[in-house]
Amino acid sequence: MADDALFEFLHMEMVAHVYKQQASRAETEQERTTSVSILEGMGFRVGQGLIERITKDTPGFKDDLDIMKFICKDFWINLFRKQIDNLRTNHQGTYVLQDNRFSLLTQFSNGKQYMEEAPKYLAFSCGLVRGALCNLGLDSVVTAEVSTMPSCKFQVVIQKA
Amino acid sequence: MADDALFEFLHMEMVAHVYKQQASRAETEQERTTSVSILEGMGFRVGQGLIERITKDTPGFKDDLDIMKFICKDFWINLFRKQIDNLRTNHQGTYVLQDNRFSLLTQFSNGKQYMEEAPKYLAFSCGLVRGALCNLGLDSVVTAEVSTMPSCKFQVVIQKA
Repeated sequence: MADDALFEFLHMEMVAHVYKQQASRAETEQERTTSVSILEGMGFRVGQGLIERITKDTPGFKDDLDIMKFICKDFWINLFRKQIDNLRTNHQGTYVLQDNRFSLLTQFSNGKQYMEEAPKYLAFSCGLVRGALCNLGLDSVVTAEVSTMPSCKFQVVIQKA
Repeated sequence: MADDALFEFLHMEMVAHVYKQQASRAETEQERTTSVSILEGMGFRVGQGLIERITKDTPGFKDDLDIMKFICKDFWINLFRKQIDNLRTNHQGTYVLQDNRFSLLTQFSNGKQYMEEAPKYLAFSCGLVRGALCNLGLDSVVTAEVSTMPSCKFQVVIQKA
């Protein structure tokens, strides 16, 4: 329990640090893009490292859907101690992963007032997913959105080579 | 197991980021001081948050030594899944906490070649200890040294008011 807290608190600090550092440099809109991409990049590399450990003893995957199911279950449990609650796909390379209680958002109150802040706290996790998929051979674009805290949806669009 | 990896990988990324960002700004010696203090400050705030959760149901402590024992045992197990291996004190406010296999150093090879890098990876943890002690009412100065990887010693000097 409190073990997760170590990661969660560090994540909070990191987000705060990256935003503060960028704020001292640039203007609002551009600044936000850069901070998001710094955090996304960190997540990407962490995701690459983690998936390597997690799939060490896993046999191959039969298709993209099989990979996505692995991300929703094994990968997510490993990181956030719960599975993705809902996975949907259009069978054309777009997947929507819904987590009804995303651990990095549970510290926020449920109201609307922190909604604007939410993307800050999702960038790292988008990177985690993209990094993991990349190491499994899938190029993707991963974005996230929050409609009601602490629930959120990750949209994964696989880029065909 | 891989849960810890999430924290460990994020910690690595954070150290790399802070150093890279500072490197693009200042000169070597000063840069190192700043990076260390940024990381130490992050650890401090994380330590404050964590100790609050961990001591929620703990009765009061009878003296400084009692607090230090709690840090070595409960606090350390909570963060790093093992206790401090050895605690020594001069009974005048100085404590030396030795961890023979410190989790944030286990990724390094045992040789001497990474010794210079070690302080980077200890700053956050020094802050963790200082933050925890601060919330328990003790002002302290915490430093760390490595003689053989992955073993390390934290020196805590309590500042009398």
